[in-house]
Amino acid sequence: MEFIGAGLAIMGAAIGAGYGDSQVVAQALESMARQPEMSGQLRSTMLLGVAFVEAVPILGIVIALIMIL
Amino acid sequence: MEFIGAGLAIMGAAIGAGYGDSQVVAQALESMARQPEMSGQLRSTMLLGVAFVEAVPILGIVIALIMIL
Amino acid sequence: MEFIGAGLAIMGAAIGAGYGDSQVVAQALESMARQPEMSGQLRSTMLLGVAFVEAVPILGIVIALIMIL
Amino acid sequence: MEFIGAGLAIMGAAIGAGYGDSQVVAQALESMARQPEMSGQLRSTMLLGVAFVEAVPILGIVIALIMIL
Amino acid sequence: MEFIGAGLAIMGAAIGAGYGDSQVVAQALESMARQPEMSGQLRSTMLLGVAFVEAVPILGIVIALIMIL
Amino acid sequence: MEFIGAGLAIMGAAIGAGYGDSQVVAQALESMARQPEMSGQLRSTMLLGVAFVEAVPILGIVIALIMIL
Amino acid sequence: MEFIGAGLAIMGAAIGAGYGDSQVVAQALESMARQPEMSGQLRSTMLLGVAFVEAVPILGIVIALIMIL
Amino acid sequence: MEFIGAGLAIMGAAIGAGYGDSQVVAQALESMARQPEMSGQLRSTMLLGVAFVEAVPILGIVIALIMIL
Amino acid sequence: MEFIGAGLAIMGAAIGAGYGDSQVVAQALESMARQPEMSGQLRSTMLLGVAFVEAVPILGIVIALIMIL
Amino acid sequence: MEFIGAGLAIMGAAIGAGYGDSQVVAQALESMARQPEMSGQLRSTMLLGVAFVEAVPILGIVIALIMIL
Amino acid sequence: MEFIGAGLAIMGAAIGAGYGDSQVVAQALESMARQPEMSGQLRSTMLLGVAFVEAVPILGIVIALIMIL
Amino acid sequence: MEFIGAGLAIMGAAIGAGYGDSQVVAQALESMARQPEMSGQLRSTMLLGVAFVEAVPILGIVIALIMIL
Amino acid sequence: MEFIGAGLAIMGAAIGAGYGDSQVVAQALESMARQPEMSGQLRSTMLLGVAFVEAVPILGIVIALIMIL
Amino acid sequence: MEFIGAGLAIMGAAIGAGYGDSQVVAQALESMARQPEMSGQLRSTMLLGVAFVEAVPILGIVIALIMIL
Repeated sequence: MEFIGAGLAIMGAAIGAGYGDSQVVAQALESMARQPEMSGQLRSTMLLGVAFVEAVPILGIVIALIMIL
Repeated sequence: MEFIGAGLAIMGAAIGAGYGDSQVVAQALESMARQPEMSGQLRSTMLLGVAFVEAVPILGIVIALIMIL
Repeated sequence: MEFIGAGLAIMGAAIGAGYGDSQVVAQALESMARQPEMSGQLRSTMLLGVAFVEAVPILGIVIALIMIL
Repeated sequence: MEFIGAGLAIMGAAIGAGYGDSQVVAQALESMARQPEMSGQLRSTMLLGVAFVEAVPILGIVIALIMIL
Repeated sequence: MEFIGAGLAIMGAAIGAGYGDSQVVAQALESMARQPEMSGQLRSTMLLGVAFVEAVPILGIVIALIMIL
Repeated sequence: MEFIGAGLAIMGAAIGAGYGDSQVVAQALESMARQPEMSGQLRSTMLLGVAFVEAVPILGIVIALIMIL
Repeated sequence: MEFIGAGLAIMGAAIGAGYGDSQVVAQALESMARQPEMSGQLRSTMLLGVAFVEAVPILGIVIALIMIL
Repeated sequence: MEFIGAGLAIMGAAIGAGYGDSQVVAQALESMARQPEMSGQLRSTMLLGVAFVEAVPILGIVIALIMIL
Repeated sequence: MEFIGAGLAIMGAAIGAGYGDSQVVAQALESMARQPEMSGQLRSTMLLGVAFVEAVPILGIVIALIMIL
Repeated sequence: MEFIGAGLAIMGAAIGAGYGDSQVVAQALESMARQPEMSGQLRSTMLLGVAFVEAVPILGIVIALIMIL
Repeated sequence: MEFIGAGLAIMGAAIGAGYGDSQVVAQALESMARQPEMSGQLRSTMLLGVAFVEAVPILGIVIALIMIL
Repeated sequence: MEFIGAGLAIMGAAIGAGYGDSQVVAQALESMARQPEMSGQLRSTMLLGVAFVEAVPILGIVIALIMIL
Repeated sequence: MEFIGAGLAIMGAAIGAGYGDSQVVAQALESMARQPEMSGQLRSTMLLGVAFVEAVPILGIVIALIMIL
Repeated sequence: MEFIGAGLAIMGAAIGAGYGDSQVVAQALESMARQPEMSGQLRSTMLLGVAFVEAVPILGIVIALIMIL
């Protein structure tokens, strides 16, 4: 049963991280093309946002690894 | 059975946090590109919002960890 | 069985809070960029709204914690 | 079985309240930014609406608590 | 089995009421910001609509309470 | 088994009525703000529509009540 | 088993009728606000449409009632 | 088992007929408000369309009735 | 088991026919209101399209009838 | 078991054919109203497209018939 | 069990082919109405695209036929 | 069990290929109608894209064939 | 059980690759039609993107092949 | 059971990576066509974003590989 639990956890983590990161990066790319002179600040905010988005999925991946070991 | 419960909890937490954070950060990036002179205030409000969004998923991750230990 | 119930509860709470908070904060960021002189009032209304949104998910998290203990 | 029932109830209540409150508050924030001179009346209507939205989920949370005790 | 039935009923009632009320209140807020001089009539129609929306979910909550007692 | 059947019936009735009523009332509010001089006729048509929308869910709630008694 | 079948039937009937009626009535309200001089003809066509929409769900409700008696 | 089969059939028939009829009637109402002088022809085409839409669901309802008798 | 199979078949046939016919008829109504002088040709094309749409669902209904007899 | 398999196959075939044909015919109707002088060529392309769309569902219906005989 | 597998395969093939073909043909019809002088080239590209879309579903249908024989 | 696995694989492959190919071809048709002088280059890029889209589904079909033989 | 696991993996891989590749290629086609002089650079970026998109599904297909052998 | 868990994990990873990468690359292509002089910076940000998006799915693929070995 622990394998199915880990599978569900990985599925959620991958979808959540994939959706979240892509929205942040896509919006950053669009804003950089519209305001090129702000690209430094936008890029640093993007990295900050990506870090927040990936915090919970990475935790979930680690817990899934704990489950199956 | 506790592994499936933990898996469902992690799945929900990762999707919720990934969706929520990405919406907040993407909107902040768009607003910063539209109003560059307000970027400090927008960034602080973004951080406040990200903290609120991640409160419940982090709690859920912790409870999932309690379940499987 | 209580673990699956708790897992479903956490899943719903995390998705509900993540969706709700992000909509409120994103709309606040957009409105602050459009009306900078109202940012104080918008921020206080945002905090009020976030508190209402998180009321039910936090209750659900607590009940899930009661279930598994 | 009562734990799964309570889990479903909490899941629905959290999603319903999170979705409903966020729509009301987000619309209130948008209207306040468009009509600043009406912000008092909009805020009171928002609070009234949030109270109506949360009535049924809070009842559901209480019944879920009755189930598991 | 009655607990799962009650859980399904509460889930549906909370989602239905949360969705329905939020649509009505959000539309009322938008219309009040667009036509401030009609805010009294809009508010009374909003309360009438909220009462109709909540009629069926409240009945469902009561029947769920009957099930588990 | 009758409890699950009743739970499904209540879930569908609450979602159907909540969705249907909210669409009718929200549209009525929008039309009243656009054509204030027709608000009487719109309100009476809205009440007629709400009655039609709620006819089937109320029947469903009654049949669910018959099931569990 | 007949209770679950009746529950599914009622769920579908309530959602179908709630969705269908609300679309018809909402469109009628919008058209009446746009063309006030045609409100009589629109209202009669609306009633005709509501009758067609509710024909199948009402039949379904009756068959669900036959199932559980 | 025949009750579940009939329940599924009624659910599909009610949703299909409710969705289909409402789209046809709503479009007819919108077109009548835009072209009042064609309302006779539009109404007759609408009735023709509603008859086609309801053909299959009515057949399904009858077969569901055959199943449970 | 054949009843559940027939129920699934009827559900799919009703939804497919209801969705398909309504799209065709609604588009025909919109086009007739925009180009009244082509209403004859549009109506004949609409009937041709409705016949194609209903071919597969009617076949499915007949096979469902064969299953349960 | 073969009845459930046939039911799934018919469900998919009816939904696929209903969706596909309706998109093709609706687009043909819209294009004919916009470019009346090309209606012959559009109608022949529409028939060609409908034939392609229905190829796979008809095959599926035939295989479902083979299953249950 | 092979019947359910074949049913799933046919369901997917019919939906995939129905959706894919209809998008290609509808876009071709729209482009032909906008650029009548390119209708020959568009029609040949459409046939090429339809052939690519149907390649995988036809293979799936054949494999489903192999399963049940 | 291998038949259900193969059925799931074929279902996914057909839907993935049908969706992917249709998006690519439809976009190519739209671009060719907008920029007729680039139709050669667009067609070659379209073929390249279709080949990439179909790579994974064709592999999946082959693996499904390996499963059931 | 390994066949169902492999079936799920192939289903996800085919849908993920089909969706991802088609979005990238469709956007590349649209951009090439809008900026013909950049078609070389766009095509190379498209190939880079397609390679990234297909990395994970190809890995999944290989693991599914390992499962069933 | 470990095969189903691995299958779910691969399914989620492939869909998450496919969706995420395609959004990032498609947005980069659109921005490059709109601002050709920034294509170097956009491409480097795109690669950074793709790396972040693929971090979690690649981890999930590796864990799925650990499960089945």
